[in-house]
Amino acid sequence: MYSNLFDILDQIGVLTFSISGARLALSKKLDPFGALFLAGVTAVGGGTLRDMLLNKPVFWLHDTSTLISILLGFGITLIFRKRIVSINRPLFIFDTIGLGVFVATGVKTALMYNTGPIQAVLLGTITAVFGGITRDILSNEIPLIFRKEMYATTCIIGGIFYLTTGYFNLPEWFIWLGTIGLVIVLRIVSIKLKLSYPVLSERD
Amino acid sequence: MYSNLFDILDQIGVLTFSISGARLALSKKLDPFGALFLAGVTAVGGGTLRDMLLNKPVFWLHDTSTLISILLGFGITLIFRKRIVSINRPLFIFDTIGLGVFVATGVKTALMYNTGPIQAVLLGTITAVFGGITRDILSNEIPLIFRKEMYATTCIIGGIFYLTTGYFNLPEWFIWLGTIGLVIVLRIVSIKLKLSYPVLSERD
Amino acid sequence: MYSNLFDILDQIGVLTFSISGARLALSKKLDPFGALFLAGVTAVGGGTLRDMLLNKPVFWLHDTSTLISILLGFGITLIFRKRIVSINRPLFIFDTIGLGVFVATGVKTALMYNTGPIQAVLLGTITAVFGGITRDILSNEIPLIFRKEMYATTCIIGGIFYLTTGYFNLPEWFIWLGTIGLVIVLRIVSIKLKLSYPVLSERD
Repeated sequence: MYSNLFDILDQIGVLTFSISGARLALSKKLDPFGALFLAGVTAVGGGTLRDMLLNKPVFWLHDTSTLISILLGFGITLIFRKRIVSINRPLFIFDTIGLGVFVATGVKTALMYNTGPIQAVLLGTITAVFGGITRDILSNEIPLIFRKEMYATTCIIGGIFYLTTGYFNLPEWFIWLGTIGLVIVLRIVSIKLKLSYPVLSERD
Repeated sequence: MYSNLFDILDQIGVLTFSISGARLALSKKLDPFGALFLAGVTAVGGGTLRDMLLNKPVFWLHDTSTLISILLGFGITLIFRKRIVSINRPLFIFDTIGLGVFVATGVKTALMYNTGPIQAVLLGTITAVFGGITRDILSNEIPLIFRKEMYATTCIIGGIFYLTTGYFNLPEWFIWLGTIGLVIVLRIVSIKLKLSYPVLSERD
Repeated sequence: MYSNLFDILDQIGVLTFSISGARLALSKKLDPFGALFLAGVTAVGGGTLRDMLLNKPVFWLHDTSTLISILLGFGITLIFRKRIVSINRPLFIFDTIGLGVFVATGVKTALMYNTGPIQAVLLGTITAVFGGITRDILSNEIPLIFRKEMYATTCIIGGIFYLTTGYFNLPEWFIWLGTIGLVIVLRIVSIKLKLSYPVLSERD
């Protein structure tokens, strides 16, 4: 059903998000199980909600590779814990790759289940951001999505890119890599330039 | 499948709950995306959980009018932000209309999927209150349902009314408007009289 | 579909978890509805998420006995509130019975829907712990699972026991009672010996 490229990218997304969850767990000083749990929830939370909304069986129930990727990400974090916690840049890149990948796989999965185009972009965004939201709620933090510069907007733009390039029948590898590349570039630019929306308030 | 009245009322519910979510976002000073996200979650959270529990496709996936109602509610809040934040009464009425509508549509949807009568009332209540619960969890507040006077009890009574009038085959418009009217009246009475349950505690 | 033993044990789980939710509600001084809501969420939260993940209709939608067990647990808590809040030991035993029961019924349900074995153990654990997680999030507490000694690990070990004894075709009553007994013993031992994992942190 899926192309090989889809599978490989998806596992990269799971792996990098697992690292991001495990890293937060380390800084919160959780025990190993709690840390593994947080890594897993971060990695598959978005895809799980997407599948429940689409009323399809959840993707990791019949597929062992996802569980292996979570364990791998968790192991990598434990082994390189000193470097992963202190150095932010490589982690940021991995996290952003995961974001781009999940936007693309989320939109594609939604379209395969015949949702409307706007809903497909929404489901791509949900796939990308919900794991992080759950991670933050479980750790009793204000969800990152409400604070980080244009985090979700980036996903929406990436989803629209995927949709329009798909509409014009551009080659599949271009659509995938273009979506992921666009999300990465937008994230880097918005961090570098400290882009953020003006805050809304009750006064004009 | 649905009567026209059902559709119109449902969109009124989405619209008014979108306003209620956007209004909280303004007072929390979120950026525009965060505010729109909170408006959307408040508006469709209850119906989404209802549909996932019933194991049916989520209602807004194949239907654009819901998305438009969310945007409309969000836009109205932005445009009238000064008045909407300072004046409480009109908002209270809209919010209560939404509550009544969602109780009725929730019970009806559950019955269409052959749940038992008690479960139908529960699903009606979940449809009405879960959007607000999610809104409060995401904003790190204690869910309103635990604090506000008889908020959920009102929904349960409304659901029982819907169920019994349906059992006696009363005309559909009477069932709908009766349920919504009853919820509104009960909310107004319980606010006016400051009705609330005695608090339970470990002592007698 | 289910054996009678399955049904009886499942209701014991619902009843004991309802007591645990109602007990927390009493100490938080919620009103009766909020308390009943918290009891219900604690009792069926885990099984509900399991069923949504498996893409099957939620178990309590077409079954009244679960609702009765929740009410029964709630009533017992109200009647014996003085004793239940002050005496911890009997409650701990009931709670632990519920944990063991839900691990076993969760694993069995997952296997009936043809998940892989690792996923079945995960779903058993989710069935056992998610009600408590939701209860804690709704009450704005850090989920117990992140703090209590080896809470989830105990479920995982119980799930593996269920799986392996099932693989060797041991008699059903042995599998059920063995799983529940093992979870109870492990919980008692880990509490008595104050077993807990070393905390992970970013330093070695």
